[in-house]
Amino acid sequence: MNILRMKIGILGTGMVGRSLAAKLTELGHDVVVGTRDVANTLAESKPGFFGEPPFSVWQKQNPNIRLDTFAKAAAHGELVINATRGTISLDALRLTGAENLNGKVLLDIANELDFSKGMPPRSLAKDEESLGERIQHMLPKAKVVKSLNTMRADVMVNPTAIANADHTVFVSGNDAEAKQVVVELLQSCGWKDIIDLGDITSARGTEMLLPIWLRLWGTLGTPDFNFKIVRNL
Amino acid sequence: MNILRMKIGILGTGMVGRSLAAKLTELGHDVVVGTRDVANTLAESKPGFFGEPPFSVWQKQNPNIRLDTFAKAAAHGELVINATRGTISLDALRLTGAENLNGKVLLDIANELDFSKGMPPRSLAKDEESLGERIQHMLPKAKVVKSLNTMRADVMVNPTAIANADHTVFVSGNDAEAKQVVVELLQSCGWKDIIDLGDITSARGTEMLLPIWLRLWGTLGTPDFNFKIVRNL
Repeated sequence: MNILRMKIGILGTGMVGRSLAAKLTELGHDVVVGTRDVANTLAESKPGFFGEPPFSVWQKQNPNIRLDTFAKAAAHGELVINATRGTISLDALRLTGAENLNGKVLLDIANELDFSKGMPPRSLAKDEESLGERIQHMLPKAKVVKSLNTMRADVMVNPTAIANADHTVFVSGNDAEAKQVVVELLQSCGWKDIIDLGDITSARGTEMLLPIWLRLWGTLGTPDFNFKIVRNL
Repeated sequence: MNILRMKIGILGTGMVGRSLAAKLTELGHDVVVGTRDVANTLAESKPGFFGEPPFSVWQKQNPNIRLDTFAKAAAHGELVINATRGTISLDALRLTGAENLNGKVLLDIANELDFSKGMPPRSLAKDEESLGERIQHMLPKAKVVKSLNTMRADVMVNPTAIANADHTVFVSGNDAEAKQVVVELLQSCGWKDIIDLGDITSARGTEMLLPIWLRLWGTLGTPDFNFKIVRNL
């Protein structure tokens, strides 16, 4: 696999999926975005869950990025990114099909947040089993790497916009080579401080960062911040 | 209350209680450490749960710091610090007695960690109700402020030892004046970046940092690190 020009399938048409699709296309990768129902996604005329414009509007601004089903997007990808909402990720990956994910790096960015009682949403994360682990369990032949789930979408793909990237992104996963592919992808986006937390069980730690992240958003009045792990080197 | 010279009761004789007691005494405060059973604590001859020397050994090195019961230590304090283990904090505070805590700032540093299945311990924190909230609920007339629970004891009292204190400590609580007292106490220890997360429910966010903190300890090979919230100012 040529890390500089990969075929990438991105599952999810929300802000995270769009930000990643645009940036990775700009970096030279060949991206297909996946959705549950292509016709429904293209027919949507109202702003989305987070106020984002309809997908069709975004797609006109990004004509090189194709939209297809979850299964087709994943089949296209040498690397697949789960950018669906965490509460529906397992369902979306079931629709995607193990046959389209087996043997591939599956970069999981999702967080399980319950928005049913308003803002801020409640995180479902616990120090027992993470979403990342459940995805790995459901897809034992995929190489799940959890990363980028601890910041807003813009920061994921443009880390240098905050303090010249003097802050941290984490990776968790069982497969060292898969983590190395993700690390190189992160570096190509401008990330400098990348901490390997260990196996996929360490995704519990990053998924549990969401409650403080959401409070900080409220307190600081902006989502443009990130965690840095400060140590004496 | 003179923030520069307070009477302080510290509940808990472990590493956190000792570190705070030594530092706050050094800063000029009048500290009494509280324990469940004074005779038992002084009779202990073996290292403690985390390998710390017996309390009596530590006390010989800190002769100005008195040991008394939870209730007497809290009665002494204008400000009281909960430095007990999180899994026994509610029990310890019940023994302390609401009458010794009512109207006072109660700085809660505890985390609920289950060590029964070895290291790393499992955090019991969830985005539903924090230990800080349960303490506030049990003691409605105390002014609970959650802080300092996101780093090791040495860093709590000597933040400048890491990157000249270029990292963050959080405060959560319902009472603005009580938070201000804690903020000034933190500043007197050398803290520069102190973020007020909001009311006591925001303690969920800091308590849920423990799983990643514990993983980082393993990954970095040292507990001498801290979180910094990096933002463009």
